[in-house]
Amino acid sequence: METVYLNGDYLPKSSAKISIFDRGLLFADAVYEVVSVINGRLIDMVRHIARLERSLGELSINAFADWSSISENLVAENDLREGLVYLQVSRGVMDEREYRWPAPDTAPTIFAFAQSRVLIENPMVDRGMRIITRPDLRWQRCDIKTTQLLYASLMKMEAMAAGVDDVWMRQGDMISEGTSQNAHIISEDGVLISHQLDRSILPGVTRIEMLAQALSMELTVEERAFSIDEAKNAAEAFVTSSTLLIMPVVEIDGHQIGDGQPGERTGKIRQNYLAAVQRVPSRTN
Amino acid sequence: METVYLNGDYLPKSSAKISIFDRGLLFADAVYEVVSVINGRLIDMVRHIARLERSLGELSINAFADWSSISENLVAENDLREGLVYLQVSRGVMDEREYRWPAPDTAPTIFAFAQSRVLIENPMVDRGMRIITRPDLRWQRCDIKTTQLLYASLMKMEAMAAGVDDVWMRQGDMISEGTSQNAHIISEDGVLISHQLDRSILPGVTRIEMLAQALSMELTVEERAFSIDEAKNAAEAFVTSSTLLIMPVVEIDGHQIGDGQPGERTGKIRQNYLAAVQRVPSRTN
Repeated sequence: METVYLNGDYLPKSSAKISIFDRGLLFADAVYEVVSVINGRLIDMVRHIARLERSLGELSINAFADWSSISENLVAENDLREGLVYLQVSRGVMDEREYRWPAPDTAPTIFAFAQSRVLIENPMVDRGMRIITRPDLRWQRCDIKTTQLLYASLMKMEAMAAGVDDVWMRQGDMISEGTSQNAHIISEDGVLISHQLDRSILPGVTRIEMLAQALSMELTVEERAFSIDEAKNAAEAFVTSSTLLIMPVVEIDGHQIGDGQPGERTGKIRQNYLAAVQRVPSRTN
Repeated sequence: METVYLNGDYLPKSSAKISIFDRGLLFADAVYEVVSVINGRLIDMVRHIARLERSLGELSINAFADWSSISENLVAENDLREGLVYLQVSRGVMDEREYRWPAPDTAPTIFAFAQSRVLIENPMVDRGMRIITRPDLRWQRCDIKTTQLLYASLMKMEAMAAGVDDVWMRQGDMISEGTSQNAHIISEDGVLISHQLDRSILPGVTRIEMLAQALSMELTVEERAFSIDEAKNAAEAFVTSSTLLIMPVVEIDGHQIGDGQPGERTGKIRQNYLAAVQRVPSRTN
């Protein structure tokens, strides 16, 4: 996608450059959002903006922009039908490198771009994801959506090396979440178990809408951590994220989930989720 | 300092810009070094290069450059007498944002700059640092010198808000290290205690030289973690880093260390350290 946004301007990707003294680059002092686009429309933009503002607030980064218009403009300029819009905000450019923050009136660095990606007809929906678990070595404020994604990236590469699709992270025997997805199971007795919102997981936008769908399907929801053994013995397992939406998991650490096929209720939640998000108007202003 | 280095070129600071698709910016997929400069000479460059190459190796980033010449050129170009050279290497620029690494032949992004700073006549040497302790919430590979420095930066701000100089991080009751320094104490019975090298601390370049000095002063060295209580009851406490060198600590969590003055042995270690690093030639090639 050729047109990107940088600090107020729409410009070609190749021209979008920032100072080496940007704090996002030197200190990972930056937060971001990924918003899915389906049929040319931004999905759940209101919740993404709320989460972005929460992340900014937690780090006392002063940044205000019309996130919705920037995102819509990128969709329009790039004629994006299906994919995502990425928004990033850092604390801005320093004169010299210092841990200490620059003056509060320092302009933040804001950029955004669009990427085309198949979301709905993702072939993984039919085959399901295969997962391995690894220790969760990330920082302990995973509720803030910062660009400190190196461990997640290392774990994606470890999954690829192991010939599977992704990693779920464990804290002791309990699963926190995936590398870039929230993790969920449906137990043998039909309870949907999803990690409670705390500092060890990202408060997923898709997770909230998924839980709403599950509740309206009269599934019982338990917000709590689940163990690796619970996951292995679950009837169904799945992840949620802005780009995977609702995605079935069929294997954890070599152990088949249920009958090894994508779960039926997971499929129904995905269907209902897609119907719901495509029904709701996306404009926020 | 006006002249910086970026991917092979020496150019004015204001022209040193990189793509918003650099992985250092999007994933904190980058490592760095800070090398002190005293009397226009790079201090301990060989060890900094070794550590940089170790960091790169741990992350499988392919980057080769004449780190020593780049650093020396920046010192010369900017006529730097005392301060630091900062070197950063990221995995390079992606075509699209993806957790998965780009092809191994992707060019890394390499940049460096110099900063003037008072190192030897730092007024903190005479008054000593005041420290508070906070939980260590960083990722659990602190032995790799990555740009994931947001927590360290947040803690520096917390120290400033508390009216003290810095934060030591605790894992349970044990101290790991400072925000950007290794932490050490000298016990009442004259033992220098310094956290062992493992994944919870950075393998400090200054720490190694400091330990060598301590050993030659016939101090007994124990490489192990120490508790907050041990620190409060120590005879002396200090930190090491490339820019603070050896710096006394006189207060921890409001508790005075020893008589509240910079420790005598700490001062002697600093003197000996300064004499040693200024004696050794800096060139590595």
